[in-house]
Amino acid sequence: MLKLYYAAHTCSLATHIVLEDVGADYSTVRIDFASAQQRSAEYLKINPKARVPALMTDRGILTETPAMLAFVAQSFPKLNLALMDDAFAFAEVQAFNSYLCSHLHIAHAHRMRGHRWVDAADAHSIAAMQRKVPESVGGAFEHIEKELLKGPWVMGERYTICDAYLFTLAQWLEADGVVPARIPKVIDHRRRMSERASVRNAIAEELA
Amino acid sequence: MLKLYYAAHTCSLATHIVLEDVGADYSTVRIDFASAQQRSAEYLKINPKARVPALMTDRGILTETPAMLAFVAQSFPKLNLALMDDAFAFAEVQAFNSYLCSHLHIAHAHRMRGHRWVDAADAHSIAAMQRKVPESVGGAFEHIEKELLKGPWVMGERYTICDAYLFTLAQWLEADGVVPARIPKVIDHRRRMSERASVRNAIAEELA
Repeated sequence: MLKLYYAAHTCSLATHIVLEDVGADYSTVRIDFASAQQRSAEYLKINPKARVPALMTDRGILTETPAMLAFVAQSFPKLNLALMDDAFAFAEVQAFNSYLCSHLHIAHAHRMRGHRWVDAADAHSIAAMQRKVPESVGGAFEHIEKELLKGPWVMGERYTICDAYLFTLAQWLEADGVVPARIPKVIDHRRRMSERASVRNAIAEELA
Repeated sequence: MLKLYYAAHTCSLATHIVLEDVGADYSTVRIDFASAQQRSAEYLKINPKARVPALMTDRGILTETPAMLAFVAQSFPKLNLALMDDAFAFAEVQAFNSYLCSHLHIAHAHRMRGHRWVDAADAHSIAAMQRKVPESVGGAFEHIEKELLKGPWVMGERYTICDAYLFTLAQWLEADGVVPARIPKVIDHRRRMSERASVRNAIAEELA
């Protein structure tokens, strides 16, 4: 059985939603960031990177959201949630997810996790990073709005793993200072996603 | 036919190596960063993100290295360079590539591209980011050394797309201030990679 290690309000929600989408037989383990549980000796055995998400499988542990999303999709091939039977379409799915991971999420991380890239005691630089977040995160969302989100779903007519991932990162945009009026398609996508049963179920469990 | 847009000394080398590995029928277009060709109107039509790599295919343009590497592997399935016939093994391949993209490459980018995350005129913060690079990039390489590189290849006995990507990013480690003696397996892997015909061919073309 699959076991998802997650923390509320983090990118682990994306995998949680897709596990619901496919109807997987899975359990969850909540990692409490407030008490720094992700750095506990016990959790470091699960993920030495001290981050969520992590997915325990019969074969071992997987990490990194783009990899986990494609894994869940490939494990439930009938639903074709990653369009993997078409190399070009799958590559578009992967390019989108990679963009979210390495551009959008990274830009966002400079608001709360600036110590990864400058000395934690350097208050000037930490604040300088935070000031840039509305522009850097906003720019990434505008790129998604203009270039990537085909509509109604990210990849067009077909719902895919990209939708769960975009919805997850779109939870944070107001707190990042992004102006919703500049990205109406993203906002409409977020609203439609929030009405899906898989999304409601995953969020309800995480916030319970 | 595939057409790879690349720039020397960038992560586009990874896809270039894998195109050589699979014996693809492909051509290349060199993008000159010194003259900011990646921001030319002509190139922005290829990739509005103003970055390399980009891969022109019969179906359209692909970007993002993890997606492109898996695409090339899937397009030449006999070589099985992404272990895609095994969902767990493929997810391990993908998790490794995602780590390179969103952790290692991002840490590296804070040396030369700090303006993405702070105001370009803020010399203090730009310098603060640069000072952290030996630690952040070094930490990522030590994680690879200790946890991820199975040996002799990244995924063990089988050469995969991960090897081309790791070799590519390992080109920069000395310039990033990483101490090679701390990561002997990575350094040995880089040396063995540099002897492969595909790697020699790709580098020879890029530096010609």
